[in-house]
Amino acid sequence: MSSRIGRALGVQIFGESHGPAIGATLDGLPAGLRVDLPALEAFLQRRAAKGGELATGRRETDVPRILSGLKDGVTTGQPITAIFDNTDPHSADYAFLPDSPRPGHADYPAIVKSAGWDDLNGSGHHSGRLTLAYAFAGGLALQFLASRGATVGSHVLRIGGVADTPLDPMQPDMQALFACRTAAVPTLSPQAGERMRQAILAAKEDGDSVGGIAEIAAVGLPAGLGSPFFEGVEALAAAHLFSIPAVKGVEFGAGFAAADLRGSVYNDPYAVAESRVVTEKNDAGGLLGGLTDGMPILVRVAFRPTASISLSQRTVSLSALRETELTVHGRHDPCIVVRALPVAEGALALALCDLWLQAHGDTPTEGKRNV
Amino acid sequence: MSSRIGRALGVQIFGESHGPAIGATLDGLPAGLRVDLPALEAFLQRRAAKGGELATGRRETDVPRILSGLKDGVTTGQPITAIFDNTDPHSADYAFLPDSPRPGHADYPAIVKSAGWDDLNGSGHHSGRLTLAYAFAGGLALQFLASRGATVGSHVLRIGGVADTPLDPMQPDMQALFACRTAAVPTLSPQAGERMRQAILAAKEDGDSVGGIAEIAAVGLPAGLGSPFFEGVEALAAAHLFSIPAVKGVEFGAGFAAADLRGSVYNDPYAVAESRVVTEKNDAGGLLGGLTDGMPILVRVAFRPTASISLSQRTVSLSALRETELTVHGRHDPCIVVRALPVAEGALALALCDLWLQAHGDTPTEGKRNV
Amino acid sequence: MSSRIGRALGVQIFGESHGPAIGATLDGLPAGLRVDLPALEAFLQRRAAKGGELATGRRETDVPRILSGLKDGVTTGQPITAIFDNTDPHSADYAFLPDSPRPGHADYPAIVKSAGWDDLNGSGHHSGRLTLAYAFAGGLALQFLASRGATVGSHVLRIGGVADTPLDPMQPDMQALFACRTAAVPTLSPQAGERMRQAILAAKEDGDSVGGIAEIAAVGLPAGLGSPFFEGVEALAAAHLFSIPAVKGVEFGAGFAAADLRGSVYNDPYAVAESRVVTEKNDAGGLLGGLTDGMPILVRVAFRPTASISLSQRTVSLSALRETELTVHGRHDPCIVVRALPVAEGALALALCDLWLQAHGDTPTEGKRNV
Amino acid sequence: MSSRIGRALGVQIFGESHGPAIGATLDGLPAGLRVDLPALEAFLQRRAAKGGELATGRRETDVPRILSGLKDGVTTGQPITAIFDNTDPHSADYAFLPDSPRPGHADYPAIVKSAGWDDLNGSGHHSGRLTLAYAFAGGLALQFLASRGATVGSHVLRIGGVADTPLDPMQPDMQALFACRTAAVPTLSPQAGERMRQAILAAKEDGDSVGGIAEIAAVGLPAGLGSPFFEGVEALAAAHLFSIPAVKGVEFGAGFAAADLRGSVYNDPYAVAESRVVTEKNDAGGLLGGLTDGMPILVRVAFRPTASISLSQRTVSLSALRETELTVHGRHDPCIVVRALPVAEGALALALCDLWLQAHGDTPTEGKRNV
Repeated sequence: MSSRIGRALGVQIFGESHGPAIGATLDGLPAGLRVDLPALEAFLQRRAAKGGELATGRRETDVPRILSGLKDGVTTGQPITAIFDNTDPHSADYAFLPDSPRPGHADYPAIVKSAGWDDLNGSGHHSGRLTLAYAFAGGLALQFLASRGATVGSHVLRIGGVADTPLDPMQPDMQALFACRTAAVPTLSPQAGERMRQAILAAKEDGDSVGGIAEIAAVGLPAGLGSPFFEGVEALAAAHLFSIPAVKGVEFGAGFAAADLRGSVYNDPYAVAESRVVTEKNDAGGLLGGLTDGMPILVRVAFRPTASISLSQRTVSLSALRETELTVHGRHDPCIVVRALPVAEGALALALCDLWLQAHGDTPTEGKRNV
Repeated sequence: MSSRIGRALGVQIFGESHGPAIGATLDGLPAGLRVDLPALEAFLQRRAAKGGELATGRRETDVPRILSGLKDGVTTGQPITAIFDNTDPHSADYAFLPDSPRPGHADYPAIVKSAGWDDLNGSGHHSGRLTLAYAFAGGLALQFLASRGATVGSHVLRIGGVADTPLDPMQPDMQALFACRTAAVPTLSPQAGERMRQAILAAKEDGDSVGGIAEIAAVGLPAGLGSPFFEGVEALAAAHLFSIPAVKGVEFGAGFAAADLRGSVYNDPYAVAESRVVTEKNDAGGLLGGLTDGMPILVRVAFRPTASISLSQRTVSLSALRETELTVHGRHDPCIVVRALPVAEGALALALCDLWLQAHGDTPTEGKRNV
Repeated sequence: MSSRIGRALGVQIFGESHGPAIGATLDGLPAGLRVDLPALEAFLQRRAAKGGELATGRRETDVPRILSGLKDGVTTGQPITAIFDNTDPHSADYAFLPDSPRPGHADYPAIVKSAGWDDLNGSGHHSGRLTLAYAFAGGLALQFLASRGATVGSHVLRIGGVADTPLDPMQPDMQALFACRTAAVPTLSPQAGERMRQAILAAKEDGDSVGGIAEIAAVGLPAGLGSPFFEGVEALAAAHLFSIPAVKGVEFGAGFAAADLRGSVYNDPYAVAESRVVTEKNDAGGLLGGLTDGMPILVRVAFRPTASISLSQRTVSLSALRETELTVHGRHDPCIVVRALPVAEGALALALCDLWLQAHGDTPTEGKRNV
Repeated sequence: MSSRIGRALGVQIFGESHGPAIGATLDGLPAGLRVDLPALEAFLQRRAAKGGELATGRRETDVPRILSGLKDGVTTGQPITAIFDNTDPHSADYAFLPDSPRPGHADYPAIVKSAGWDDLNGSGHHSGRLTLAYAFAGGLALQFLASRGATVGSHVLRIGGVADTPLDPMQPDMQALFACRTAAVPTLSPQAGERMRQAILAAKEDGDSVGGIAEIAAVGLPAGLGSPFFEGVEALAAAHLFSIPAVKGVEFGAGFAAADLRGSVYNDPYAVAESRVVTEKNDAGGLLGGLTDGMPILVRVAFRPTASISLSQRTVSLSALRETELTVHGRHDPCIVVRALPVAEGALALALCDLWLQAHGDTPTEGKRNV
């Protein structure tokens, strides 16, 4: 506990990988938002294992069954819950648990924390499958932001040592980000994407996995969103992004590279463009001390390689307290970065949407025609 | 809003840089913790501007006036509030505000957000001075963790392009961390520290500033602390760490470098040592999916260079909506990484302490003698 | 928003009366609690419309479909979600909405708040049906408290002007409370119950409804649970109890009657009994300034009469902004107090369970055998 | 813990009765609210012990020292903290503690909860003195509501068995409420107030105390504020009101009396008046299922008699575990209802203000002239 986050916009996720269903409740979205369900489902399909060469063999339709909070496709202002049935679990693949925890997974600490009571099949509640429920909430937040003029996009910046062209911090090419979504590896440079694909396949062939970095941009937000300190955009967005399993690093704007700069180089000077205050460059990634400054928000998220590999690994038998070898079968992604892109977009959107609602409240901006 | 964080352990900070006082309330610490006040004050002195060559010229005693929550130096279980008087503000240095926002500072978004009502003198509530109040709370969390056998330490890993020896993730040398605290730049390698000091002084001489990276370790925590997802150690610790002004990146364990590794290299195999489950290496930084695994926790925090520099910078006149030049006088640190070390230790400790209390509750572990 | 409450123990409810399903997520219960599912279902059946003469004609099985958080009937420490399908909605009964709000219902303010987007069929998310989901969470809290030695019971103190024997504040007869659960109107005095039943039937025959008062007792809790002020037992329990639709009053111990007493009469003197500190009487209802004192907790909850009646009522046409008459058809309870008893027990239990977990944390008290 | 409440508007109180100071932080109020400090101080003086015949002999100025969140008397949007020094404690009066807990006070459970570490002098953090800090926050919420057109008033409905004229639920006479504030006992009927004063003096003469009931009205709020269930007006207002020490009952509108009514009598029919939707009567107290309906909000709050009396009482020696007699000296109010009126008004205002901000956000409605 607690699989819940948010102040003006609450997200609660629930479910286990091999339980009957997983799901999410999103609480706080104003009434009157017309939800584009096909677009939401298409968004979730970006995360789905497409059964191709790069993803797990598990087959789930991943279509949300929305239980509440929408009427005729429009938000009612009440909590929105969707569930996703688990129809294709293979619990037999996990017979080594709870005795032999898998390296890189949460098995061992989960056993200790729960005194053995946690459900570990398919990683249980710790599974990456839960990001489907989380992405459902994120997809709604993205649609809400879009209704207020803000858009979020992402690409794979790095996989297996191969680097994509970074986004232009002053003017991230959102159209290019949207266009590359259908690629096997969404990158700005198709060549980089193809080389990443090769790197993933090579790892897969070796029974191994690779990590990578996602870069996300949000544009169209006004200056002045957020707060200093604990509800700053950075703090809240990082809490969301680090909640995605496998994330080990988050940086905004120039990020870690800023550490090597001097202030005279790093500070973004102000200028006037078309009667608006802008900055001349954007090393801050659109964020000054927790607040948006009106420039594009840039964040990079580092993912460790998928923990599940089919190579033999050293672990321990907890019952015998002695070392042993473990070979994990089952269905796993050799690289989760591609599928994680919509999850990370949604995570950032949830943070921004929460802060937007803190600033503007949940009063609908438009009344229903016949009221 | 909201300058508040935490679930089982709440931190509320308040105050403006040039207001009467700043302060913090820490709510949730169990009764019966004997607070070492001299140690707490010494901890805060590590953050204080010592008036030396590396720090701001502002002079404050930075001694907490504790208003509540302690009796005879022992926590009562009630909220602990301390205030720090502001005795040396120079508001005249900020006459350019609110018309000309400083690049790199939160001035401009704060003006937009507050429609001009925010107090910007000395950065107001956005000021790094607030980290003093935050560090007070952090110092208490560190003492609580110490009472449960866990310790936290840090060093400067990088300033101005100069790198210190990184910590050994399997066995961070906590004694060395404690020992180097008194250095001008606390590093494991004195030579690196001296070169960093030179880099800071060079920047200062140029009227400029530098950024850097802090590395923090926490040892002595049991496996199983934390939660998957939103109250994972990574999510909560990142929310705390990104609340420190100037932080632009946070990574755990191998962090961004993990993105280039394969799973077979990254995963930390389990082993048995002295009848305990350990990992053979520690690329995870002691954290698996939000939960501690019993190994040392390792986190690195990137700080952008100090926003305040005395070189002339381009900004805008908000009233005239035209571009102008700004030269900021006043007293500023050419590098805040050294002073930020105790703040970051405290931030990590607050996250860990919150999760510890979620697991164990706030019932005192020891009764008062005469009860 | 927000249909969520709790700090160490979070309850999120969702769903609309005529939507696909309603449900609840309970987050924070420690791993290792063996849930008695038949008992939980029996508990929910106490709330169910039994189709008898006193209740709505709506037919739902009201059997929870548990989606998460239990393995082999034992809590895993992860969020527990249950859903209840809506299989018998009659939306045609609500054709007068949204134009003609029903007196006594939330229709009108819900329309204003949501600008007309809220789902009002069968009262939508505002429906008493949501108390089924809430009672599911409450039933789990009751089982948790029972595992720690505390029990909660209730009876109808008053309906239609008929009064039952009040509980003995020093020693509420819990066995009698458990025994009377199966009665049409659970009372300590069967005669009082029978007269209440007559009063309900008389109202029903008139197309009308009646209100009433429930009295709840919790025994077996140690002294020292709770907090002063905002997380006092009274504050948290009242927040839970006033969340039950139709509740208009809550009082603890002597309650409103205490207002007419003198301190020398009201204060409960301390005494020693069997080497334990007790009070000689219990006008405080077991609660002193937010904290339990170890004596039975007593609370009374006042319910207004059911808002839905079949008599003609005066309302307005919102579109025409003129007054009109409304006769509501559909299926309604002439009195909801009897069905509300388990809901109110659960509400109190959730508050107490949250405070128990704040004090003791969510670490399991017992390990799984094979760990 | 936790002496904190609120979602969009957070209140944190701190301090002990005999510590250096008490205080409160109010976090979430929008920037740009011009605070009327003399009015705020006058509001707090209504709560102050005026040294007259009805109140404690303790002398404190009770003037807030505002540390943060205001600039030139206008809110900055940052947390507002005020402290009140404790200048007149008499700790010698409490030498019987911690051995002999006072009946009616939180001494005994506080000792158990804190294992003896809590500060009990003058009731420590549990003291009614903390309501001064709470009233400071409440006074700001009242001024915020007033800036949005809503006002809150109260009177003593009952003390010592003497009843005042109840408010007209359709049109509570706010001017009369404001006018009677200066009376020794603020009532609508001066005769009732005089008889209450006699009842208080009679109790005082006997070394005893009396309880009473306050009635509070809030007018000017729009329909549609609040939420169903856990953040309904009733739930949140009750959580605030039950946080005031000595409160044992809260009811809205017809309250407990509603339990004896039939639905056809209780339901408030809708009508149209001056092109607005109104109800013909107001038994609901302006609240339908957690939401305001636009009619005046009516709430009654029952206070037990002051726990501190100078008559001898039976208690126990905790060290000897045997029964004993206790006579408490010190300075106490024979009745706290009069002083509690502004506290209760503030409590209700804080709940309403939180819900207002949830609906509308914290964006300032008016910009500063020179921005």
